[in-house]
Amino acid sequence: MSGKITMGHGGGGELSARLISEVFLKAFGSCELQANDSAVIDLPGGRTAVTTDSFVISPIFFPGGDIGKLAFCGTVNDLAAVGAVPKALSASFIIEEGMDINELKVIAESIGNLSRASGIPIITGDTKVVDKGSGDKVYINTTGIGLVPQNLEYHPNKIVPGDSIIVSGTIGDHGYCITALREGIDIRSSVISDCQPLHEMVSALAVLGDKVHAARDATRGGIGTVLNEWARQSGRGILIKESSLPVLPEVRGGCGLLGLDPLYLANEGKMVFASAADKADEALALLRKHPAGRDAEIIGEVSDGKAQLIMETEWGTRRLVPIPRGELLPRIC
Amino acid sequence: MSGKITMGHGGGGELSARLISEVFLKAFGSCELQANDSAVIDLPGGRTAVTTDSFVISPIFFPGGDIGKLAFCGTVNDLAAVGAVPKALSASFIIEEGMDINELKVIAESIGNLSRASGIPIITGDTKVVDKGSGDKVYINTTGIGLVPQNLEYHPNKIVPGDSIIVSGTIGDHGYCITALREGIDIRSSVISDCQPLHEMVSALAVLGDKVHAARDATRGGIGTVLNEWARQSGRGILIKESSLPVLPEVRGGCGLLGLDPLYLANEGKMVFASAADKADEALALLRKHPAGRDAEIIGEVSDGKAQLIMETEWGTRRLVPIPRGELLPRIC
Repeated sequence: MSGKITMGHGGGGELSARLISEVFLKAFGSCELQANDSAVIDLPGGRTAVTTDSFVISPIFFPGGDIGKLAFCGTVNDLAAVGAVPKALSASFIIEEGMDINELKVIAESIGNLSRASGIPIITGDTKVVDKGSGDKVYINTTGIGLVPQNLEYHPNKIVPGDSIIVSGTIGDHGYCITALREGIDIRSSVISDCQPLHEMVSALAVLGDKVHAARDATRGGIGTVLNEWARQSGRGILIKESSLPVLPEVRGGCGLLGLDPLYLANEGKMVFASAADKADEALALLRKHPAGRDAEIIGEVSDGKAQLIMETEWGTRRLVPIPRGELLPRIC
Repeated sequence: MSGKITMGHGGGGELSARLISEVFLKAFGSCELQANDSAVIDLPGGRTAVTTDSFVISPIFFPGGDIGKLAFCGTVNDLAAVGAVPKALSASFIIEEGMDINELKVIAESIGNLSRASGIPIITGDTKVVDKGSGDKVYINTTGIGLVPQNLEYHPNKIVPGDSIIVSGTIGDHGYCITALREGIDIRSSVISDCQPLHEMVSALAVLGDKVHAARDATRGGIGTVLNEWARQSGRGILIKESSLPVLPEVRGGCGLLGLDPLYLANEGKMVFASAADKADEALALLRKHPAGRDAEIIGEVSDGKAQLIMETEWGTRRLVPIPRGELLPRIC
């Protein structure tokens, strides 16, 4: 099967069946995908995490990944952010008439490859086709199910004064990469998206139990938005140090040029944590042992102060980092 | 909050937060929706059903419902089709820039109202905005989780010769309604979409245990497509009688006019069952007790013959009902 997607591929008839079988079942591994209205899996029960995300990134291919990789990692990382061990994903595609079927195959294979490598099966799916001009190549929804170990509860309302704020690596890579791509800046030799699954890295912190208070996948809106939400949700102040923020030199330079702030740029492979202060160094060491966390840093702490995010700049002054208003980068994920 | 959706509503900043809080949390009931990367719910474990569907219907409002109602019912019905008791849904929105926020509110309230009426919570969600011309008002993905009672396993591979084929009511209502709406046929006084949740009706058959072999929500492609798939999946022939098919007179007449076949028209509130012959009458009686099943009929049976769908026409002749090729009605769900 090759050529272009037609409306018939979404009609539910023979063409739909062929598209599903030759593109999706083939890419995902047909054993796990069940040909019924719902997939049925055995779960052990207990605290079960559920998350959903639709991915509308433009362009659909970018340095370091594609919309399929993003859809897999984004949902796995949302499960990881509550400490869950991912168990299964669904994948639903809204495809624009005229899309190149070979591009769709590459995207489906990105998902299939990650699924096999991580042992997280794609258990159910859906395919819809919309007419040309009512979509943009392909949008993907992934919904994930995971199991939360009994002693873990990562939630912003558990954040307390004194907690250390840790970020698992350099910030803004994904957002900068996509922006540079759109602006036509030559990034062949430099920044690629950090898109990667983080569940294994996060699970390394499970030994710290409830000493880790909160975790958040710092995607759309960046760590500036995550930490503002945490300040609001916990009712605590958060102080970060600009000099501690891990930022790639190319990203720092490029942001200066484009008038962007890495704090607000999306990440697709970075987790922010709030950890009890007495376990922060241990948490940092555990993160750094994992390839996805090798550049982890303690970037700040939680205070007793007003529920807002403050940054101590490299000049020693302090400034408010507000929650962003209006338009950030559109269609970054 | 009113006016039009802007790109900023999808950026992840303050406008996004307001949209989520004032439109979605308000409509769905904020208690169940958890402000974290994943929702965490307690599940008892065991056989757990998972299904996902993206809804791209055009137009988004139609007689008998809207895209929100459809997204709720469609996913609940896919759970019901494996005998599962629905436990929770996710809802993810891809919204086109320029959409009227009041329309979005109506759609979100459709989902919220059904959620409250059925006791099936919306536990997690997502909102993305795409630029004008890259979507069509709104697309919704719903993913559902349900629990399958231990003694039930509805699956086409359990279909055996002699089984009775039952449909829970009149066929083609939804597909005819949408087609008529698009063709500008006056249907004010007649056909409305059958969009409705079927989980309670299906659960009435649980007392029959494994005497019910398969169930399928006959949406896109209609019962003609479902029964063809069952013939292929079970390796059995299926014979249906045209004279037994429940079809509303207006749908029958309109289909004649438009050259459509009710067998291939989408339903959004009809279930097809394969039941052991000795329990078919009991199954029929149980279905008819429920308002959603009051027009249920036994329409055919499974044979030892070749794996294809045959219809005995009203003239007594037999004809092959093939799996439809190419384009059916686009964007019907």
